[in-house]
Amino acid sequence: MSNSFGKVFKITTFGESHGPVIGVVIDGCPANIAISEKEIDLELQKRRPNLNELVSKRNEMDKATIVSGVFRKKTTGAPICIIIENKDVKSKNYEKIKNLLRPSHANYTYLQKYKVFDHKGASRASARETVARVAAGAIAKKILKAQRIKVIAFVKSIGEIIADVKMKDLKNVYKSKIFCPDKLAEKKMIEKLKSVQKEKDSIGSQVGFIILNMPAGFGDPIYDKLNAKLALALMSIPAAIGFEIGDGFNGSKKLGSQRNDLFVLKKGKIVTKTNNEGGIQAGISNGMPIVGSIAFKPTSTIGKDQETIDIFGNKKILKFTNDQRYDPCIAIRAVSIVEAMCSLVLVDSYLLNKIAKEEIKTSSIKRLKRQS
Amino acid sequence: MSNSFGKVFKITTFGESHGPVIGVVIDGCPANIAISEKEIDLELQKRRPNLNELVSKRNEMDKATIVSGVFRKKTTGAPICIIIENKDVKSKNYEKIKNLLRPSHANYTYLQKYKVFDHKGASRASARETVARVAAGAIAKKILKAQRIKVIAFVKSIGEIIADVKMKDLKNVYKSKIFCPDKLAEKKMIEKLKSVQKEKDSIGSQVGFIILNMPAGFGDPIYDKLNAKLALALMSIPAAIGFEIGDGFNGSKKLGSQRNDLFVLKKGKIVTKTNNEGGIQAGISNGMPIVGSIAFKPTSTIGKDQETIDIFGNKKILKFTNDQRYDPCIAIRAVSIVEAMCSLVLVDSYLLNKIAKEEIKTSSIKRLKRQS
Amino acid sequence: MSNSFGKVFKITTFGESHGPVIGVVIDGCPANIAISEKEIDLELQKRRPNLNELVSKRNEMDKATIVSGVFRKKTTGAPICIIIENKDVKSKNYEKIKNLLRPSHANYTYLQKYKVFDHKGASRASARETVARVAAGAIAKKILKAQRIKVIAFVKSIGEIIADVKMKDLKNVYKSKIFCPDKLAEKKMIEKLKSVQKEKDSIGSQVGFIILNMPAGFGDPIYDKLNAKLALALMSIPAAIGFEIGDGFNGSKKLGSQRNDLFVLKKGKIVTKTNNEGGIQAGISNGMPIVGSIAFKPTSTIGKDQETIDIFGNKKILKFTNDQRYDPCIAIRAVSIVEAMCSLVLVDSYLLNKIAKEEIKTSSIKRLKRQS
Amino acid sequence: MSNSFGKVFKITTFGESHGPVIGVVIDGCPANIAISEKEIDLELQKRRPNLNELVSKRNEMDKATIVSGVFRKKTTGAPICIIIENKDVKSKNYEKIKNLLRPSHANYTYLQKYKVFDHKGASRASARETVARVAAGAIAKKILKAQRIKVIAFVKSIGEIIADVKMKDLKNVYKSKIFCPDKLAEKKMIEKLKSVQKEKDSIGSQVGFIILNMPAGFGDPIYDKLNAKLALALMSIPAAIGFEIGDGFNGSKKLGSQRNDLFVLKKGKIVTKTNNEGGIQAGISNGMPIVGSIAFKPTSTIGKDQETIDIFGNKKILKFTNDQRYDPCIAIRAVSIVEAMCSLVLVDSYLLNKIAKEEIKTSSIKRLKRQS
Repeated sequence: MSNSFGKVFKITTFGESHGPVIGVVIDGCPANIAISEKEIDLELQKRRPNLNELVSKRNEMDKATIVSGVFRKKTTGAPICIIIENKDVKSKNYEKIKNLLRPSHANYTYLQKYKVFDHKGASRASARETVARVAAGAIAKKILKAQRIKVIAFVKSIGEIIADVKMKDLKNVYKSKIFCPDKLAEKKMIEKLKSVQKEKDSIGSQVGFIILNMPAGFGDPIYDKLNAKLALALMSIPAAIGFEIGDGFNGSKKLGSQRNDLFVLKKGKIVTKTNNEGGIQAGISNGMPIVGSIAFKPTSTIGKDQETIDIFGNKKILKFTNDQRYDPCIAIRAVSIVEAMCSLVLVDSYLLNKIAKEEIKTSSIKRLKRQS
Repeated sequence: MSNSFGKVFKITTFGESHGPVIGVVIDGCPANIAISEKEIDLELQKRRPNLNELVSKRNEMDKATIVSGVFRKKTTGAPICIIIENKDVKSKNYEKIKNLLRPSHANYTYLQKYKVFDHKGASRASARETVARVAAGAIAKKILKAQRIKVIAFVKSIGEIIADVKMKDLKNVYKSKIFCPDKLAEKKMIEKLKSVQKEKDSIGSQVGFIILNMPAGFGDPIYDKLNAKLALALMSIPAAIGFEIGDGFNGSKKLGSQRNDLFVLKKGKIVTKTNNEGGIQAGISNGMPIVGSIAFKPTSTIGKDQETIDIFGNKKILKFTNDQRYDPCIAIRAVSIVEAMCSLVLVDSYLLNKIAKEEIKTSSIKRLKRQS
Repeated sequence: MSNSFGKVFKITTFGESHGPVIGVVIDGCPANIAISEKEIDLELQKRRPNLNELVSKRNEMDKATIVSGVFRKKTTGAPICIIIENKDVKSKNYEKIKNLLRPSHANYTYLQKYKVFDHKGASRASARETVARVAAGAIAKKILKAQRIKVIAFVKSIGEIIADVKMKDLKNVYKSKIFCPDKLAEKKMIEKLKSVQKEKDSIGSQVGFIILNMPAGFGDPIYDKLNAKLALALMSIPAAIGFEIGDGFNGSKKLGSQRNDLFVLKKGKIVTKTNNEGGIQAGISNGMPIVGSIAFKPTSTIGKDQETIDIFGNKKILKFTNDQRYDPCIAIRAVSIVEAMCSLVLVDSYLLNKIAKEEIKTSSIKRLKRQS
Repeated sequence: MSNSFGKVFKITTFGESHGPVIGVVIDGCPANIAISEKEIDLELQKRRPNLNELVSKRNEMDKATIVSGVFRKKTTGAPICIIIENKDVKSKNYEKIKNLLRPSHANYTYLQKYKVFDHKGASRASARETVARVAAGAIAKKILKAQRIKVIAFVKSIGEIIADVKMKDLKNVYKSKIFCPDKLAEKKMIEKLKSVQKEKDSIGSQVGFIILNMPAGFGDPIYDKLNAKLALALMSIPAAIGFEIGDGFNGSKKLGSQRNDLFVLKKGKIVTKTNNEGGIQAGISNGMPIVGSIAFKPTSTIGKDQETIDIFGNKKILKFTNDQRYDPCIAIRAVSIVEAMCSLVLVDSYLLNKIAKEEIKTSSIKRLKRQS
């Protein structure tokens, strides 16, 4: 029951990191959306391993095959199944460490939960599962694009190095090989990453996101607030440990009179002077850009030796010899996953919004004038 | 659809801030849980307004009436409806400002979503709704208590003042009138709050939470990770703008070799040396205390004049004369709400865990030995 | 979890037959639907006990109070809670039989499920719960009315007496005190009912339903077929034991060449010559009237003595002295409940249909011409 | 959203009749269930086309491939994906009739719903989809088997020929090539089927089902009654038009005093003298066998010419030349699907029952004695 996401645009993912395929079924995608495998592949390339020397060396081409739900390049309303094959599985790398509890990793907690101990890599807990999210996200993005909504994520920080990303830099995100559009920070980050790799270590990071051309009225009151749904979506990404909307933790230090976003009329449109709220008021979008960020821990898998115990309680040294196959920093490949998860949340909100109210003939302003 | 929370222990809340009642229906509560109105009232007292001079002056006694689902002081398996009456409704305070867009408030976004403009206070968006969450949380807590699980929340920061809360201080949380067990910080916070009130302003804050005696194995993989569910639950509290689990944003600055929690055997039990993960690995509890925090913005309602526009686009000054009836700082009353939401998440996980695996006769260690 | 119905127009009911109130929360009702307590009361009157000498003597006025979600006579998008008070509760009638297992009744199975034995009437299992369904159904009907959709149910059979109901008779359903528009059958049914009452017995029955002005395209493929959702909805009514759509069990005897509904063009509209399918093909409405029926068992409560055992296994005679307070035949009061449940299914389908496809600019015929 | 079934043991199916595969993802299957592809294939063989001359000639071997969720022959708690390839797809058979509305078929209503016209067979609406249900049902059956619960379906009627099936005959169901254990009826049915095939026609039918060794307490009150869930499950099978539990429509003709099932103590166990209720009281199993039946229409596809119109409204004759590839009678191959759907409902109930109540120390009888 925990492998599905979304209320009406609902994805269900399946497949293990070391099995034959990763897949996703999308149930609830509207009919008549044009989509091709090529468009999905373009999104998959962003999170692909082995893209450059700064990410995992696992060599996956990540090509999507649409198995169902699309006829003549358009969705039919039937469930869409997309399959991505696992090509570069090296399970035997895990044989030597198979009974060891891996620090900050999934194997101990999965054993506790299911009483099954699958030593071959992280199985479902592996970030490999996220390729399915990105595939589904590609379709979500296509639906949003028709509404002009644009979701952009970027590397915001690596360790102590924090990027200063301006609105005008956003178009350059994909030009950076680490998806950081601040040139100065990017340079420092790459240096840091190389030194971390050399030490067989890993490092924590943050991904920022911004959603442009948002209509007002997305999101639902109380338990399905847009910020709460984004938090659920983004905190479900492996290694996520923090979430902020708008000015977030920094905002918790301010006074109300400093922070409140004042309404003004600008070119006949109601906007706010500032955007400390990050585009969401009371759980519903206000039409300003949605802004937030997500913190990732340093990758739990590292190349350095670590003290641990085995499942029988004996002291052991975990020597992970497979050190070319982990990401030294999660943020880089997480950028595409953050975009996908945000897009899934937004498509759900977009569709649900169609049934939030029955059409009313008179304009709301007229009606309100009459009411008041 | 957005007024329900939980998968199997499911709550649905109803009622507006300025209507006759706030209520909650709990569907899926197991039969045979002993519960009384008095036990619920004890929890409600923690979030009650007008408790002291540092919170809203709205005068509500907040007594719970169990309307259904309990027979001879025990749950029957039928849906439990709990009603809390609104006694101190002053809608006419809102008449003067009825067409004004309130900065960082719900009225503009609700109008955009529903094309209905309910000027009487914040209606559903009001924190008044959370009284229903706390009532339901009281039953959740009762179920957890039988499992020895203890959820404690506390005021962690107000503005720039950050409390230093040690494990041994947790027993003193409810002795502090602002729920901050660090005496030194508490004193500074109270001073700050008084100055904020005097200025008719408001101030941001953080609430910390810790969950003790957690069994390993709570939470579900992928989209229902325990940290993701906590994020959803806590970010759904009005005014929440940030969420962290474990060392959170601070953890995003560290190296893996520094931060990984190493496993050790302690008194025959598998534990971790450190707890940077905050008790959750790969979305599932590892048996260590669950630790996290939540950031709240300064209350959007303030007593100071604010520039704004009305729904017709005319510039106006918002003069909120009802200044004794807002909380200068959200954290204080949010403490009980954070506890309630955490408890609802945990009860759901507890119940779902009962169906995660079929019983196996041989002990897992024996079986694993045989497997390996 | 079992007290909710609907995917997007979702109702949750609460309250016991012998408690203070029965209530319903509707979550997901669109904003801007005009609704009044009076409109709800009109529907409630149809299922009210003590309407005449042929139904239960329990004396309930069944007045609805809208507690939340409606502002200035229109829905706001917030959850709508409706409360109906229980006035005529006579729990002490049940004291004498409190440990006896009641044949074909709820008390044995509820005890087995929950290990709780609530001897005071049937609690949740009582048909009293259905008053909440009818209240919610009144709002559903209002939404359907704006789409011109009309749901009509009627008494189709009592015992062996089967009514012959023609389309033109449907306007007379509510003129009959037993909701049977076939005058001849009605007369025989009333005689039969009187003799059954005299014998302190009960009798089985069927309710027919027809839905007029149905648009094509309602319902969803595979597991949410319109006929399957109707079956779920109607089989959830207490005492329902059979369901048919179209010619149903009779259709299972026919040849395909006899039964297939042939398409013809009539006044420029695609219709079928016959309507054996009852308006649904492959789970989706085809624009013809939806026709079906539902079988009810004879009321399990009877005034006659019955042999049984108590919960300790001792043989006992069940003497039900409260014989004026049960319905001799369920169909009469079930008419309004069938209408309510059908309406809830249809509103859900209507709303979900809004998100089944994205708008396409060119007309489907044009596009199909181009495709073919 | 309409391609999933189940609350906690949740299946999602995908794939079109004329696409490369049919598949199912099971989310929520407990860990530690032993299952092999061979066990699934055994179930698939029961619904396989081309089994003998009395069913469709489509030649599918229907071999299951478990793609995920099973490790060392046991479920792991991860989602289980099962794929069945479509080998014998003959889409070009449909080219000639591609713009014709097929009587009582899916193509008109799907066009109305989605504005997409997929002329290649029935796509998702094809009974081909049900192979995925049977695959998932095989795992459900395995879980039930460990609880000794046994689900048996059989052909109850074909046209006017009704089988007389006794409890002792049930072991012979799979020995009959049309799954009818009444030898006399079987002979007449086979004759009838051959004559129907010769006429290029089809014929309606009924499938009966019985569930043995049922524990009391399965099913949930109000909207998730066990009978209502079975009705939803079985009415979702293509071509289902009627559902009965217990004596069903026949029961609607009886008096309460005739029909009530009286409780007696038999070998220390509480049972009922008769089983008119079909093992369910007030929506919850009472420990007696669950008995019911389901009516199917004659197959809509027939070999005979039929008058119809095309999508542009022109009169046409539908000549279906693919006449070896439809089932003359649905019941035969539906037997395995009915068993699968019943099993899915029961596993869900079994799992949900684990969380219906918290354990109580004292025995219920003792406690009840004390209470009374």
